[in-house]
This record gives sequence, structure tokens and C-alpha cells, in this order.
Amino acid sequence: MALSSVHASDTEADTPRLNRRQAAKVRTRQKVLDAARTLFAERGYEPATIRDIAKGAGMSTGAVFANFQDKAELFEAVLSEDLARLAETLRSASAGETSTRGRLLATLTAGYHESLEQLPLVQAVVARSWFQPVAAEVRTRAAIKPLVDVVTDILQAGVREGELRQDADLRLLAELIYGAFLSNYRHAAYDNWGIDQLVSQIGKQVDVILAGSLARQ
Amino acid sequence: MALSSVHASDTEADTPRLNRRQAAKVRTRQKVLDAARTLFAERGYEPATIRDIAKGAGMSTGAVFANFQDKAELFEAVLSEDLARLAETLRSASAGETSTRGRLLATLTAGYHESLEQLPLVQAVVARSWFQPVAAEVRTRAAIKPLVDVVTDILQAGVREGELRQDADLRLLAELIYGAFLSNYRHAAYDNWGIDQLVSQIGKQVDVILAGSLARQ
Repeated sequence: MALSSVHASDTEADTPRLNRRQAAKVRTRQKVLDAARTLFAERGYEPATIRDIAKGAGMSTGAVFANFQDKAELFEAVLSEDLARLAETLRSASAGETSTRGRLLATLTAGYHESLEQLPLVQAVVARSWFQPVAAEVRTRAAIKPLVDVVTDILQAGVREGELRQDADLRLLAELIYGAFLSNYRHAAYDNWGIDQLVSQIGKQVDVILAGSLARQ
Repeated sequence: MALSSVHASDTEADTPRLNRRQAAKVRTRQKVLDAARTLFAERGYEPATIRDIAKGAGMSTGAVFANFQDKAELFEAVLSEDLARLAETLRSASAGETSTRGRLLATLTAGYHESLEQLPLVQAVVARSWFQPVAAEVRTRAAIKPLVDVVTDILQAGVREGELRQDADLRLLAELIYGAFLSNYRHAAYDNWGIDQLVSQIGKQVDVILAGSLARQ
């Protein structure tokens, strides 16, 4: 409690103070984001209207549009916040593990746990990512980067600790693992796979993807 | 010429004859499919209207609806025809190669060659596959199966010829390879990757995916 107060005042000293109007603007923006998050999670992207998001935030549609150009921008802002928070959760999920495989599976399992309840949203995000303007894709990649970074950092630790080969192409491995992780949601969506099946499948996929990069024992 | 005539009469003998009305129906259906294929390829899925497809086929929208329930069904029928034809092209592309890697790369390279001109269509298909009714997903999987089978058959040949381990999980490998193949289209769509970059990337991905399944030399 005391420690966190110290940290808070440290931060206040470092960052410029918001005046009252700016602070109100930040609060309004956050209220809109939270209302949008709730509605996107409940309904998916298309059926969530700006009108209902405004209603959920207790403000006019005009006030929403003063903060976000359109629903797409609002959606990206929610996604970006969520993924940054998710990345922190995933990072801490791997903390107790000592092997590369163990860390990856703890992380990816936590990823499924955190997201499976919002499956329609995950599907909407992936579907949208296949057909969006380049500028939106650039923002999507920035939003996703913290997640891929968690995987890359685990692989880098594997190289440092001698479990993976020095010459392993970590970016390629991280992208393949992330791609396999994502593709399994199709089974959740269409074959009613639950956590256990998703985890078992990503475990097999990780084993295949890492096999050629393990250092000779 | 003579040979193909012989084959034609063989086939006629084997399959039930269509009467004149049935034959006309098959021709009409094919005309609609061809007009739809052209329009989907030019515009992508959403902007292609049934009205324009009917116009392209030289018939009424009523005649189109007599053959297909809606645009989604028409699209799936076009896709299914295209993918079956593509699978044959991919299969023959690997014929001259003697190694598993060589066969896979010849096949996947041909896949990019055959499809890159229709990139918006590929994007639309993948996006749609993330958010469709289960019944549509079942039909999509049936349409895609011939493609995945080409990869699986190459892997099976690799096991038979002693290049891959007997205990390799070929289905898992085929799905990972197919998933990597598909995911690279994102780079074509957003990073202007051409054939050379796609082929180089899938080559590296195939190497990673096969590494753990190579038989000890």
C-alpha cells in the first residue's frame, strides 16, 4: 500500500499534470471505451451500434464522435487496450516455468483462457484483419505486437539458456506459433473445442515448430 | 484426338444419359457459375450483385435463383469448382520433383501462381471462413479438402520413401503447412509481396515444420 503510493507520486512527478478539462476528456474517452468493450464482447462488431455504445456510456452519440471518428477507430482502440493488458497477463503466466515449452504452453493456455469467452469477438477481429485498409492493418499489427513479443521473448530466453540453437530464426518461429494459436480458434468456433482440446493441439503444434531448433543435447 | 473420343464414349456408357431438359439445366447452371466467377474475381464478394451476375450470364435474376438459393451458395459452388481444378494443377506441379521439400515447394509455388491475381477473392474467402454458419463451414472444408489432400499425399510419399519418419503426424504437418501457406497472403495483401517473397517465406516455413519429422540420415 505504502509502496504503491510512493510509485504513484513518482509517476506524477515524471508526467505532466492534466488540467481539469483534459482530465475530464480522458475520463469521457475511457467511459466510451468501456461501454464499447462491453457491447463488442456481448454482440460482436457488426451488431454493436454507436447509438447503443453511447447509451451504455450514458452520453450522446455526438459525445462519442467527439472522441472517435467512427466505429472502426473505436474498435481498434478497445482492441489495443485489451491486447496490451492481455500481453501482461500472458507474460506473468509463464513466470513459474523453466523450459521453453513450459513457458510457451503456460502463456498460450492463459491466452485461450482469457479469450475463449469472447470467441465471437476473436472471430470478428481475425475476419476483419483479412480485409481492411492498409492503415487499419498497420494499427492492428501495432496492437498485436505485444502478444507476439511475449512469444519472441520466451524464445530468446530459450536461446540464452542454451535450449534453442543460436541460429534459430526466432521471428519465423514466433509467427508460426502465433499463427497456429490463432488458427485453433476455428475449431473452437465450428467444432466446439474447449480449453483442453485447444491446449492439447497447440502443444503438439509447438513441438513440431520447435523440433528443428532444439540445441543438440 | 482418337484417344479422347474413346474415353468420351467410355464415359457416356458408364454414366446415365441426361435428357434434353436436364442437359439444358446443367448448361444454365454452368453459365451462371462462369458469370459469377468472373464477377467475384473482378470485384470480390460483397460488390458482386446477383443482378450483375445474371446480366453477365445473359439471363434473368429469376433464372439465377432457380439454380442457387442465394449469393452465398453461388459463391461456394464457384469456390468448390475452382479449388477442385486448382488441386489437379497443384498435384501435377509436383510430378517432376523427387524430394518431399521439392514436391511441396513446387506445389505451393504453383498455388501462389494460380491465385495471386485473385488476391481480393482469396482475402474474401479467408475472412468469410472466420465468420460463417456451421453449415457453410462444413461446405468450405469439403471444398478445401482436395488442396490439403495434395499436401498430405506428398507427405505420405515422403514416409513411404523413407524421407520422413514413420511416426510423423501427417495431418498435423499438413494443417500447419496449409495454415502457413494461407497466412502469407496477408503479406501479399498489405506488404506488396510478390511470388518470389511468398515462395521464399513458405520455403523457410516448410523447413521449420518438417525439421522434426525427417528420418535420421
